[in-house]
Amino acid sequence: MQLGLIGLGKMGFNMRERLREAGHEVIGYDPRPEVSDVANLEELAGALSAPRVVWVMVPSGTITHSTIVELAGVLSPGDLVIDGGNSRYTEDGPHAELLGEKGISFIDAGVSGGIWGLTEGYGLMVGGSDDDVARAMPIFDALRPPGDVADGFVHAGPVGAGHYAKMVHNGIEYGLMHAYAEGYELLAAEELIKDPQAVIQAWSNGTVVRSWLQSLLAKALKEDPGFAEISGYTEDSGEGRWTVEEAIAHRVPMPVIAASLFARFASRQEDSPTMKAVSALRNQFGGHAVKRISESG
Amino acid sequence: MQLGLIGLGKMGFNMRERLREAGHEVIGYDPRPEVSDVANLEELAGALSAPRVVWVMVPSGTITHSTIVELAGVLSPGDLVIDGGNSRYTEDGPHAELLGEKGISFIDAGVSGGIWGLTEGYGLMVGGSDDDVARAMPIFDALRPPGDVADGFVHAGPVGAGHYAKMVHNGIEYGLMHAYAEGYELLAAEELIKDPQAVIQAWSNGTVVRSWLQSLLAKALKEDPGFAEISGYTEDSGEGRWTVEEAIAHRVPMPVIAASLFARFASRQEDSPTMKAVSALRNQFGGHAVKRISESG
Amino acid sequence: MQLGLIGLGKMGFNMRERLREAGHEVIGYDPRPEVSDVANLEELAGALSAPRVVWVMVPSGTITHSTIVELAGVLSPGDLVIDGGNSRYTEDGPHAELLGEKGISFIDAGVSGGIWGLTEGYGLMVGGSDDDVARAMPIFDALRPPGDVADGFVHAGPVGAGHYAKMVHNGIEYGLMHAYAEGYELLAAEELIKDPQAVIQAWSNGTVVRSWLQSLLAKALKEDPGFAEISGYTEDSGEGRWTVEEAIAHRVPMPVIAASLFARFASRQEDSPTMKAVSALRNQFGGHAVKRISESG
Amino acid sequence: MQLGLIGLGKMGFNMRERLREAGHEVIGYDPRPEVSDVANLEELAGALSAPRVVWVMVPSGTITHSTIVELAGVLSPGDLVIDGGNSRYTEDGPHAELLGEKGISFIDAGVSGGIWGLTEGYGLMVGGSDDDVARAMPIFDALRPPGDVADGFVHAGPVGAGHYAKMVHNGIEYGLMHAYAEGYELLAAEELIKDPQAVIQAWSNGTVVRSWLQSLLAKALKEDPGFAEISGYTEDSGEGRWTVEEAIAHRVPMPVIAASLFARFASRQEDSPTMKAVSALRNQFGGHAVKRISESG
Repeated sequence: MQLGLIGLGKMGFNMRERLREAGHEVIGYDPRPEVSDVANLEELAGALSAPRVVWVMVPSGTITHSTIVELAGVLSPGDLVIDGGNSRYTEDGPHAELLGEKGISFIDAGVSGGIWGLTEGYGLMVGGSDDDVARAMPIFDALRPPGDVADGFVHAGPVGAGHYAKMVHNGIEYGLMHAYAEGYELLAAEELIKDPQAVIQAWSNGTVVRSWLQSLLAKALKEDPGFAEISGYTEDSGEGRWTVEEAIAHRVPMPVIAASLFARFASRQEDSPTMKAVSALRNQFGGHAVKRISESG
Repeated sequence: MQLGLIGLGKMGFNMRERLREAGHEVIGYDPRPEVSDVANLEELAGALSAPRVVWVMVPSGTITHSTIVELAGVLSPGDLVIDGGNSRYTEDGPHAELLGEKGISFIDAGVSGGIWGLTEGYGLMVGGSDDDVARAMPIFDALRPPGDVADGFVHAGPVGAGHYAKMVHNGIEYGLMHAYAEGYELLAAEELIKDPQAVIQAWSNGTVVRSWLQSLLAKALKEDPGFAEISGYTEDSGEGRWTVEEAIAHRVPMPVIAASLFARFASRQEDSPTMKAVSALRNQFGGHAVKRISESG
Repeated sequence: MQLGLIGLGKMGFNMRERLREAGHEVIGYDPRPEVSDVANLEELAGALSAPRVVWVMVPSGTITHSTIVELAGVLSPGDLVIDGGNSRYTEDGPHAELLGEKGISFIDAGVSGGIWGLTEGYGLMVGGSDDDVARAMPIFDALRPPGDVADGFVHAGPVGAGHYAKMVHNGIEYGLMHAYAEGYELLAAEELIKDPQAVIQAWSNGTVVRSWLQSLLAKALKEDPGFAEISGYTEDSGEGRWTVEEAIAHRVPMPVIAASLFARFASRQEDSPTMKAVSALRNQFGGHAVKRISESG
Repeated sequence: MQLGLIGLGKMGFNMRERLREAGHEVIGYDPRPEVSDVANLEELAGALSAPRVVWVMVPSGTITHSTIVELAGVLSPGDLVIDGGNSRYTEDGPHAELLGEKGISFIDAGVSGGIWGLTEGYGLMVGGSDDDVARAMPIFDALRPPGDVADGFVHAGPVGAGHYAKMVHNGIEYGLMHAYAEGYELLAAEELIKDPQAVIQAWSNGTVVRSWLQSLLAKALKEDPGFAEISGYTEDSGEGRWTVEEAIAHRVPMPVIAASLFARFASRQEDSPTMKAVSALRNQFGGHAVKRISESG
């Protein structure tokens, strides 16, 4: 089928490739003319036959919002917009409403798989009406990994459910990565262990902890032994924060995912105000030696 | 080759099967005569040709220790003992020494895979000398999963390193399970999500969080929707505790694995003394209503 | 000076007492006629001479909001409203604006001290303009504890700062209570310790951990040895949740306060879905015995 | 009464002062001749009339142990040794036994108060027999703060109980400090708050969170606004580690104290191996930008 695809960055570019390989006609738009098939959204709308399906794959937040506002202006009743970015699920309802006023349908789609999706397929979690999902199903089938549809695609619920499921997926991802990473640090700290990389590599088959992330950790350590080349400074994209906020809203205890989130915050601090305060307190009551700024290398 | 195997429980019984299927001669001993090939350890020693290789697969702690003490009495110089149970790595040095005084070698082997190992193979992490490991390699090759040896087997270091690696593996396992479980609880708490099982199932291909544990979680939810049949009371086998203790000994921050360990402790408390104290404090300063024992169902 | 006081519950009732003892004229309103001085807010406004100062001391959220809306209707330009409840600081701006449109000023006041404030005075953290704070200062001086003003009162910043400071105060309170409570549980678990109450009592003077909460914990244990009479079920009033949410918004690592919040959530669960999932996973891979619902007492 | 006091450092020196002011005869020994009253332990023993009471106030671990071994050689049956240092409680039993073989009694004493103890008195938690504690009571009475004995002194149980109680005290201390520090960091991060120091100062009276540590935090911030002069690098003296280890041994969930301990470990890392691994993983699956060592300032 025919698809308009907005955003041809790291994710969108590969998705266009995968969709075309599956025989779909994809007209892509990106502000960078060298990758774009059309000059602007109006031209994109003109190039697609109604009823159109347009996939938005741009950074979440302001850019996604303004793209959807612009689409509401150039699309027609009966068209369908799919937000495949990492939008917060709370934005889906308003977007569905905004488009719905023009008679345009909306699906939110959580897309997992990163740069590997091109070859392995993307894990998809979508929210929307049964009719809308059925309509876009050929696209989803081309994007998702081969095999049983239920193993790589879920219609998670009404509008918002797709991004909600993706948010939880990413929250879990934080916890998983941190668990492996703590284990790695302990292995690396223990003299008995000759080579942490070899241990983690050996978990690839048969063990309880085998996983895609485990294999990536082994791969990363092979490429950069001891992580000599990489800093611990770690960004967070928002979905971890939202997951913990949702946990609070639902009164769900979430110590593991929260701990992995807080560790990312801490990784970006040059020095921790909390620990300065703790250190100052120890000094106050105990006369314990503290490290003055002038001493800390 | 020929192997003596002590302990034919859930793990040992299956290992005997797998080894025999691979063409090895296994003489098993277990206190339960209906599964045992010999009547006692003396008979086991007699049935094996020197130099013998004996695999101990019994509960860690007292039973493993007494088994090794008894083996030191019935084996001969040049024999090799492999402890494949979940012993704490700190016990390996003393066991190696105790056997070494009789000229008997020792390998510690961490074995992962649970009840699935029979068919899929066991992930193996071993500690010992190069010569001893080379000698037992045919056994390891039969037990480990097929494919690249480095993906299912590691000679992690000297005596102790195998159990150390297995301990860290299990500590990571605690964290992984807890991360998935927190995500599940949040999915189950959110109305937008029609069916948490379907979401978790859909993570099987393409996603970042795909793993063996993820597939087991989907399977478990399919078998017992909403976990209606299972209690949250969760044992811990010791390796999680040891992992956190090692983290403390090495000054490794380990918030995620520790949080998952503490949650297991909490799951086994009828009521939490800590929370009783918190509740009593709130009552003291705020006159906040508290739940008296007589009210709590 | 003259003050209107809305809400004569646990806090407001005592505050009226304390203010009257300090020589202020307080006209209180409460929906319960047996404690109220006037029949309704209109009558309250009529009984006060302009420019009026009215203190709102009602449950945060809907009731505070509707009270302020109603006050906007019955007060006059030049009047001043003080919200002394535990409102979320994000509500203060809108309330100030709503009142400001009628020419009415607004102060947010965080009030700590609970039922002890009547005799010991209330710790006050206020937000608003310098002029407004100066105008209400006689009231603040009567409510706050005797001694140096800076030790029991702070003009923390513009509108919102008072409730913000109180929110952080309460977040810290969660962490402090939990730290004492964990220590209590460990003392109670250790056979060497004859009487945890006596130990905690002995921390009252000279020690680093001496505090008001420590003295309350000793008192609570004296009144209910072993906390035999109280359940661990612990409510949370919202300020802990908001504190962690603010930490996330500001990218502040907050593992301690978050852990104490999550433990409250957990205390209110009959059984933990997270732990059910962990237990089910252990069963899946290990064939570990799990506790079926039918077995759990 | 007469007391031998070994160790005249920060704590011991002040204790000698306080005891002398109370009218006791203190003969102090320290390897630094300028503060010592005698040349060695043999001379100390000779200077005291039997039955002697000797207080050991030296660094825990090796030095405490060797001191007690040496004392066993120079003291006589009927003498009493008090270990007032921060020894791990597990060392008390062996020390009591070692001395007991010579007919010498033993008390373990946890001493809190730091540099403030000289003027305010020291909080004391002791373990030992009733007779031994009664015998040393005049010393305890001089060291403890004035007022009700139960508010500054506890005979917590048999040998070991004193250090156990002190260990828990210090574990709680970690949690308390961290809770205040997290709150401080959030106050400092929020624009609405004009001056975090003033807010924390204002908690000194009337509030729920008032405490000695709170007053010290206000004082520290006054002396070093914004903690501009201090680094977050924070040592730990061992008692926090032991507390969490005891929690694990007793299966006590201890997320708050553990989190504060792990944060100290993290404060001493130049870069976190755990976060390097997390960052490397993000890079692997997402092509997320990572910070190379060469970039991190």
